[in-house]
Amino acid sequence: MSGAASVRCDGERLSESIAALAAVGGTPAGGCSRPALTEADRAGHDLFARWAQEAGLSVRADAVGNLFARRNGTASDRPAVMLGSHLDTVPDGGRYDGAYGVLAALETVRALNDAGIRTRAPIELAVWANEEGARFPQVCTGSAAFAGLISVADLRALRALDGPSYGEELDRTGMAGPEAPGSSLPGAYLEAHIEQGPLLDRAGIPVGIVTGIRAVRYFEVTLSGEEAHVGSVMEGRRDALRAAAAVIERVHSMCATELPEAIVGVGRLEIEPNAPTVVAGGVRAWVCVRPAGVQPPAGWEQRLELAIVTAAAALGVSADVTQVSRYGPVEFDDACVTALRGSAAALGLDPPLMVSNAGHDAGYLAGVAPTAMVFVACRGGVSHSPREFAAPADLAAGCDVLLATTLALAERA
Amino acid sequence: MSGAASVRCDGERLSESIAALAAVGGTPAGGCSRPALTEADRAGHDLFARWAQEAGLSVRADAVGNLFARRNGTASDRPAVMLGSHLDTVPDGGRYDGAYGVLAALETVRALNDAGIRTRAPIELAVWANEEGARFPQVCTGSAAFAGLISVADLRALRALDGPSYGEELDRTGMAGPEAPGSSLPGAYLEAHIEQGPLLDRAGIPVGIVTGIRAVRYFEVTLSGEEAHVGSVMEGRRDALRAAAAVIERVHSMCATELPEAIVGVGRLEIEPNAPTVVAGGVRAWVCVRPAGVQPPAGWEQRLELAIVTAAAALGVSADVTQVSRYGPVEFDDACVTALRGSAAALGLDPPLMVSNAGHDAGYLAGVAPTAMVFVACRGGVSHSPREFAAPADLAAGCDVLLATTLALAERA
Repeated sequence: MSGAASVRCDGERLSESIAALAAVGGTPAGGCSRPALTEADRAGHDLFARWAQEAGLSVRADAVGNLFARRNGTASDRPAVMLGSHLDTVPDGGRYDGAYGVLAALETVRALNDAGIRTRAPIELAVWANEEGARFPQVCTGSAAFAGLISVADLRALRALDGPSYGEELDRTGMAGPEAPGSSLPGAYLEAHIEQGPLLDRAGIPVGIVTGIRAVRYFEVTLSGEEAHVGSVMEGRRDALRAAAAVIERVHSMCATELPEAIVGVGRLEIEPNAPTVVAGGVRAWVCVRPAGVQPPAGWEQRLELAIVTAAAALGVSADVTQVSRYGPVEFDDACVTALRGSAAALGLDPPLMVSNAGHDAGYLAGVAPTAMVFVACRGGVSHSPREFAAPADLAAGCDVLLATTLALAERA
Repeated sequence: MSGAASVRCDGERLSESIAALAAVGGTPAGGCSRPALTEADRAGHDLFARWAQEAGLSVRADAVGNLFARRNGTASDRPAVMLGSHLDTVPDGGRYDGAYGVLAALETVRALNDAGIRTRAPIELAVWANEEGARFPQVCTGSAAFAGLISVADLRALRALDGPSYGEELDRTGMAGPEAPGSSLPGAYLEAHIEQGPLLDRAGIPVGIVTGIRAVRYFEVTLSGEEAHVGSVMEGRRDALRAAAAVIERVHSMCATELPEAIVGVGRLEIEPNAPTVVAGGVRAWVCVRPAGVQPPAGWEQRLELAIVTAAAALGVSADVTQVSRYGPVEFDDACVTALRGSAAALGLDPPLMVSNAGHDAGYLAGVAPTAMVFVACRGGVSHSPREFAAPADLAAGCDVLLATTLALAERA
């Protein structure tokens, strides 16, 4: 072995690991169901822990169920280069979302082992607990706790949609360990992930470098009108569903003009009473807006709220707008991005710079360590589905970039 | 007693009857719950039957639960002048909707009895079964069967929202009789009813003469898009809920320009999957349109359907539009309207001519007999609510018009 770029991952072994892990919580359609802190999720963590131990790593869990596997460096005082992602899935999800990043991290270590390469900085693999927020209705809670954004006590109190608390399920599955989350911060964090969007796939490009994550805002809009018979006179109507329709239109049109390339969606309405013969007296709508880039125009949230209130008021309906969820925007670390680009170039790749539309554990890690991500093309942009697919060659290319960058940051001993 | 106009109803007795009947299925808030073919509905019919018998009328029911009470005329070969309405209510409804028309009819006979007046034509009181369609989801089924628009067998098979069939509930309550519906058609049909709209109340006018009923059309619009994550790219989105919003807007704007004074409403959406994080793949919407007057512009339904399909298609969503319910328009009989106006004028009233926004049993009766209606002001136009209220003086004025017109049509013997 001469230069860093000459170390390559074993793409076949990576794909075999992905297939083996996919069998844990595997679904008939070829997807995966490993909702956070279930038996299947623990089985996924257990399989990873066994593989990590077989690769010579020391494994431990923290108090919120994050799992770590450490490969020592020669300079024991240096902070680790951390690689990770998550193993929980949405119900009936795919086999790549999360698992790819964890197994690419594992393959990085395996490839270094095969090549007999030691590094000065330690390398630490991280499996973040409950990234999806599909069972416990809050996303990325493991990495949030690691970054100090939620306390262990608060997280333990979080209720699953099916009843038990996060703490009860941690105790039942035995997935937690003694370590306080975030007690040892890394010197850098890298995460590989499928794109979960169509851009790389459409362009026929295997790998992209992620420079940040869009802001994600959920607004809950409560529209208060007045119930009436649909046959009653139009004069004086205060139709909350008609107002909801106007709000949906206004949100889209305002974003189209003021937030170019924003991603907008209204997925849920609760309509009272929701009867064919009754003008709705009340509607609750959930509006999601993700402005493009990592620096959306100042004041956009206030202008959006005003647009919503104005659209409803024109129909005699009052609107109460609450931001119920905010995430990002996140700007990743320049040096990490540069390192990833350099590694990719050395491998003969010319990856585009991209901003993630979806949240990731890397979004929280960026608050406590220099961070960046590698995206790999996924077919049709399909994710959270058994149809989720990424080509083995692309997965290997992404892993090679991760491996080379890890070696560059951790430094060959 | 000299002229017809000198016979007056006993307004106090009318109001007492309304109050006594309101106690049957009475609610704490002062309203009524007598859904069709329930114990309460039967108790209402029973109370009316007792009163009718006490007034010397012969009472019988037909095979679908319509109740009739007959006062013989001196010319036994003449068809009856029929007066009626319904006693069933929506759940937690008011005490005037339906009951007023039945009890004004009864008061008409009582007043004739008191005045010792006999008529040439018989007078027949009708209590139509299941006008509201609140329990059995089809309106005016009793009068529809009477008019030959639905068979006894089909109506017996109709399922209540709470489970049993119309036939089972007829048998259980014993509300049906042997007579085939519509076996004896009247020479004329008159129905008194509260307006269920604000026009008379606002104008301070007690009584209006109804020349017909608006068309009522319900369209079921099935919108087929494609499910996606709300964070996925906007390109290629086929958002069925956004399309529903556009359809709601388009229906209102098209009616505003092409159907002046139309009454329009979308009361119910079924959204799949209706989750904050998911772009809806499918939506079903119920659109109700009631064009003004009794002769809406030709082709309006086709143009509406086209407008709906076009609005959805602009968002990549396909729309399937089905008319799931059609009623009217109904034009009442000129001679009946003229007779009502003449009676009102003789009473010193100057009632406006109006078109009903809501359907009534009179709408179906108009298909088999010369028909018209009298409306009485109700406070604020409120109906289907315990707050429903009509002033005793106005109820008496409407009853006087009904009485005088009955006498004019049935002819004093």
